[in-house]
Amino acid sequence: MIKLKFKTVEWSKNKVRILDQTKLPLKVSYLEYDDYKKLAMAIKELKIRGAPAIGIAAAYGVVLGMMQGKYADKKEYEKRLDSVISTLKSTRPTAVNLFWALDRMKKVALEYEGYDMESRNKRLLHEALLIHQEDKVMCRKIGEYGAKLLKNGCRVLTHCNAGALATGGIGTALAPLFIAKAQGKKIKVYVDETRPVLQGARLTTWELLQQGIDTVLICDDMAAFLMQKKMIDCIITGADRIVRNLDAANKIGTYNLAVLAKFHKIPFYLAAPSSSFDHSVESGDKIKIEERSPKEVTNFWGRRTAPQKVKIFSPAFDVTPANLITAIITDKGIIKGKRMD
Amino acid sequence: MIKLKFKTVEWSKNKVRILDQTKLPLKVSYLEYDDYKKLAMAIKELKIRGAPAIGIAAAYGVVLGMMQGKYADKKEYEKRLDSVISTLKSTRPTAVNLFWALDRMKKVALEYEGYDMESRNKRLLHEALLIHQEDKVMCRKIGEYGAKLLKNGCRVLTHCNAGALATGGIGTALAPLFIAKAQGKKIKVYVDETRPVLQGARLTTWELLQQGIDTVLICDDMAAFLMQKKMIDCIITGADRIVRNLDAANKIGTYNLAVLAKFHKIPFYLAAPSSSFDHSVESGDKIKIEERSPKEVTNFWGRRTAPQKVKIFSPAFDVTPANLITAIITDKGIIKGKRMD
Repeated sequence: MIKLKFKTVEWSKNKVRILDQTKLPLKVSYLEYDDYKKLAMAIKELKIRGAPAIGIAAAYGVVLGMMQGKYADKKEYEKRLDSVISTLKSTRPTAVNLFWALDRMKKVALEYEGYDMESRNKRLLHEALLIHQEDKVMCRKIGEYGAKLLKNGCRVLTHCNAGALATGGIGTALAPLFIAKAQGKKIKVYVDETRPVLQGARLTTWELLQQGIDTVLICDDMAAFLMQKKMIDCIITGADRIVRNLDAANKIGTYNLAVLAKFHKIPFYLAAPSSSFDHSVESGDKIKIEERSPKEVTNFWGRRTAPQKVKIFSPAFDVTPANLITAIITDKGIIKGKRMD
Repeated sequence: MIKLKFKTVEWSKNKVRILDQTKLPLKVSYLEYDDYKKLAMAIKELKIRGAPAIGIAAAYGVVLGMMQGKYADKKEYEKRLDSVISTLKSTRPTAVNLFWALDRMKKVALEYEGYDMESRNKRLLHEALLIHQEDKVMCRKIGEYGAKLLKNGCRVLTHCNAGALATGGIGTALAPLFIAKAQGKKIKVYVDETRPVLQGARLTTWELLQQGIDTVLICDDMAAFLMQKKMIDCIITGADRIVRNLDAANKIGTYNLAVLAKFHKIPFYLAAPSSSFDHSVESGDKIKIEERSPKEVTNFWGRRTAPQKVKIFSPAFDVTPANLITAIITDKGIIKGKRMD
């Protein structure tokens, strides 16, 4: 029903093919990897990003890594498996889907320990494809549940990119918008540009426009103005990790919007697949927050925008406490948040 | 006591000389104008910006405009005066200092109606220099009053640029920081980069580093994270127009910080000279908000960052209601705001 004009990530002829998101929206170009270390670097450098998408890419990365090597025996095979998984795990610390997918890959490899190496690799590929396919289905379901929250004519604010570019399907936060649009509802989407990497400006607007959605780009520091002027009916963002008490880590700036939403009495929704839930962590303050390179802040596509000597603080994510969340849209239904209005 | 290494604006050999702020921090270069229309364009293009600084520049612009022309008689002189003032008034709609300075210039020109044109022009120049000098003194006083609010070791967040580059003296919001530093207090300043024009990244960090202040640059969407982590003790920004009920217009993003400050129980201060108060307007909703070109959002120093077809909404200012303001630091002392904690 919803046709995408691009493929974020795919397994193709024993390679992992990804859309290079650092070049968007100026250029649509694909990269192919047959080396898991290069794929790991691509994840680090945000050529592919978004919690579910990096989970899928990393799962494929395990297959690449195991296909690349030669192993004398089972022991060497499993040693290699640990090393490949460890490299892929070290790329991004905050999103849980990465760890979830890699743990799942490891589990099936170990379950098949009685089989020859080729069979084990086949099993790994099967699992990676399954993770990808399941994500596609989860996106679709998130879209269907989430669309019920969107009235005809509604005006939605989103942050960063939690669309098809962040997943194996039609996205998480954007899925309800795509489905609502396909259902014939009129919707307007305001997109935070999302500094420093501009995923909103570069990626989200690009996806939304492709689906014919009325899209308005703003700078992050303008969102409060729009809420004050009653131009926003609800906020939907993705989530990179939702822990046991429903605190949620997501792209830096999400917590800001959650505070603004509470103040202005606007519903604040997160959208995430089951794979973004981390039941092993009790509360948000335990989530490791990735700090990224100062250059993302001080250099804009190669051009310096700040004095050389200035210090930079650049957390890539923040944690929104459950009591600022109205509801979480998942593939299994809508979970009520703990916000009291 | 506080030595500045640059001059934001000055009257020099019958010309107006300004520091070209669009080139900072990469290049320190000055522009000279002997044509008031070109100066008006420079104000529009943000080569000089900041409420007090554009008031001063516009006052000098009146002198330029009157020196440029030839007039048959008093009537023509005054017609020209109206035309020059009207051009300068049309440059930026939100800051009140511009209108305040131009109204003051007009008033003295009319008071000297009995004099010959050369004497009237001399009187105009005297008034412009006086406006400049008074602003310098007001900045200093704002700094002295404001420094009392800053404890040794405090960590301050600021937005946009309300420093020496925005005024005829040492700034408004930055003045208390400069004075506190000169008094030997240790302070740390977090600076919002302030999209879309990056006055924080380009200008404020540059000024603060010159005075040896510990300066950390962040993106606008990170401020909430810092407040959540208790890394900010107070917020100080400038104000472009403060109306009768103490609602205040300032750079877009200021209202966002005011909401965050209230939520996190952090004092929120504005700093502004008497010339930024507009008693003719009763409440903030009556202030005209300038909308700026979409290109400031979609093009980054000439490079496109968003798809061609995307719509843009770019208000340049927002209004912070008085009930979110802890106090206003002025040259006449500290005015209590209406925020109840």
